[in-house]
Amino acid sequence: MKIFIDGKVRDTRAVWFENDKVMMIDQRHLPKKVVIVSFDDYIDVAKAIKNMTIRGAPSIGAAAAYAMCLAALKKCDLIKASKEIKEMRPTANDLFYAVDYMMVCLSEGKNPIKAAESYAQSIINKCIAIGKYGAELIKDHYKIMTHCNAGALATVDVGTAIAPMRQAWKDGKRFFVYVSETRPRLQGMKLTAWELLQEGIDHAIITDNSSGYFIKKGVDIVIVGADRIAANGDFANKIGTLEKAVLSKEFGVPFYVAAPTSTFDFNTKIGENIVIENREGEEVTTVDGVMVAPVGCKVLNPSFDVTPARYVTGFITDKGILKPNEIRKVIK
Amino acid sequence: MKIFIDGKVRDTRAVWFENDKVMMIDQRHLPKKVVIVSFDDYIDVAKAIKNMTIRGAPSIGAAAAYAMCLAALKKCDLIKASKEIKEMRPTANDLFYAVDYMMVCLSEGKNPIKAAESYAQSIINKCIAIGKYGAELIKDHYKIMTHCNAGALATVDVGTAIAPMRQAWKDGKRFFVYVSETRPRLQGMKLTAWELLQEGIDHAIITDNSSGYFIKKGVDIVIVGADRIAANGDFANKIGTLEKAVLSKEFGVPFYVAAPTSTFDFNTKIGENIVIENREGEEVTTVDGVMVAPVGCKVLNPSFDVTPARYVTGFITDKGILKPNEIRKVIK
Repeated sequence: MKIFIDGKVRDTRAVWFENDKVMMIDQRHLPKKVVIVSFDDYIDVAKAIKNMTIRGAPSIGAAAAYAMCLAALKKCDLIKASKEIKEMRPTANDLFYAVDYMMVCLSEGKNPIKAAESYAQSIINKCIAIGKYGAELIKDHYKIMTHCNAGALATVDVGTAIAPMRQAWKDGKRFFVYVSETRPRLQGMKLTAWELLQEGIDHAIITDNSSGYFIKKGVDIVIVGADRIAANGDFANKIGTLEKAVLSKEFGVPFYVAAPTSTFDFNTKIGENIVIENREGEEVTTVDGVMVAPVGCKVLNPSFDVTPARYVTGFITDKGILKPNEIRKVIK
Repeated sequence: MKIFIDGKVRDTRAVWFENDKVMMIDQRHLPKKVVIVSFDDYIDVAKAIKNMTIRGAPSIGAAAAYAMCLAALKKCDLIKASKEIKEMRPTANDLFYAVDYMMVCLSEGKNPIKAAESYAQSIINKCIAIGKYGAELIKDHYKIMTHCNAGALATVDVGTAIAPMRQAWKDGKRFFVYVSETRPRLQGMKLTAWELLQEGIDHAIITDNSSGYFIKKGVDIVIVGADRIAANGDFANKIGTLEKAVLSKEFGVPFYVAAPTSTFDFNTKIGENIVIENREGEEVTTVDGVMVAPVGCKVLNPSFDVTPARYVTGFITDKGILKPNEIRKVIK
């Protein structure tokens, strides 16, 4: 992804491996400043996953793979490390998938760095493929809506929901993106708007509350990411996704989910079986360290919601665009 | 409304008249502290309307009536005063209505204080009636959702959407209220949650994004306020209301709008004729003075949305509960 640092354009990833260290952009500081942090112990990478230094299911997966790489290089107890890393975030399938992938590679005696790099590169390749398939859905002058950050920051590079926009813009198409701010952590406003700004893609930040207003007024396509897709096509994504899906159906707007095929979890039969992470209330009552709520109020803070498959027009995957009833094709 | 100040419970209004002064709770300081301000000049009350020291259409109306009262007591030019006060918030219908009401009373030689008090009391009486009709819809163990602040702070006392909850709680019913935070200005989190906390009504703050999650999971009734109701039952209310209405219909949850009959505007035939106020982007990008967005991003900030009548189960008014096709009854 393109990043402006000190007036210069730099091409970078959300997480990478360099000089035996795991490097990542500390996303908690964005959009105010670009802070790059490094870790040489797997447990610190695990903590960075938990405290959301890095977020977005595919980026978390890559960070987990690199964490397992560090654990292997330092000859730590891999069983213990894999358990500790997996405990950090309960909803994202990529975390478990990446750790299991590394365990298999390491048990087969593969080089830890090569295995982790290969995992990260495979994510980027999938995102590029998603971008190419998805770009075909975007026409000139389209009004697109997205939610949260399913951009390069979330997926090592390129993005999932943002990938078709990057590709279409590169292809010379000109369109407009409504970026929903995405409370409570404002990843839409802080990260997606920031990414689009770096790329020069035309957009505006909107409150989550005004999604309905704009969808009713006229949006041509909604594209969101996914944290986990169940075997029946129900999917978990950032809280607020369900609202946009229902509104899209109600007002006749095509609703697409962009995700690599690794997001499909055929062991989870239906969306209701997906465990939803409830995060601390402080995430809602405090904005950038400023307490905004009355002292003593209860808060409920589910971090994800599950959107039933019936609201999905299609899944934009690295294997092509699939309807909900076609997703089993990717097993083959 | 009940307010805890210095450990004592005090019964107060959002705005009132005392010792020839207009008194009001400065809502900009809530929920951090209860600041009561007083004004003895009408122009200062007008400024308090403009800078949102007081907000909520009925409370603004009462403040305007009291401002006209001050102007009369001080023998100011009433035509000039009425113009200046009306200019403060261009969209609040109650503001014009209250100023015109006072002009008629004063031209008829009525006592200014009595006229203004009568205006404020009539709002409260309507809210009490809304509370009584609406309380019948609330059953023990209900899960209720509301949006923004349609409470006592917005309506001199008691509230509109909150009135049925106050009444039902007083009647001994026990239920739970989901309070959507209501971006961008967070009136749900800052004002409604604060009001419910003072009354001891069980509730939790949720992000606007999680309304869909909770409505799908199981809400028994949604009650919101309204800023203007068109002749066909379409209504304008705080941005985000449309989303809750569509979600309620989709998941079979009764959706009620609580408003005094003065909110009905039979001169506006359909909702599409209601002009939506677009407020400055800074309201979205800045939270309590802290800038949270990337510098240079565009923002779109519609402050209200229009919900079509087909999503409304009923209007809880001071004349009873009316279905959208029954609202013309209130003219009679």
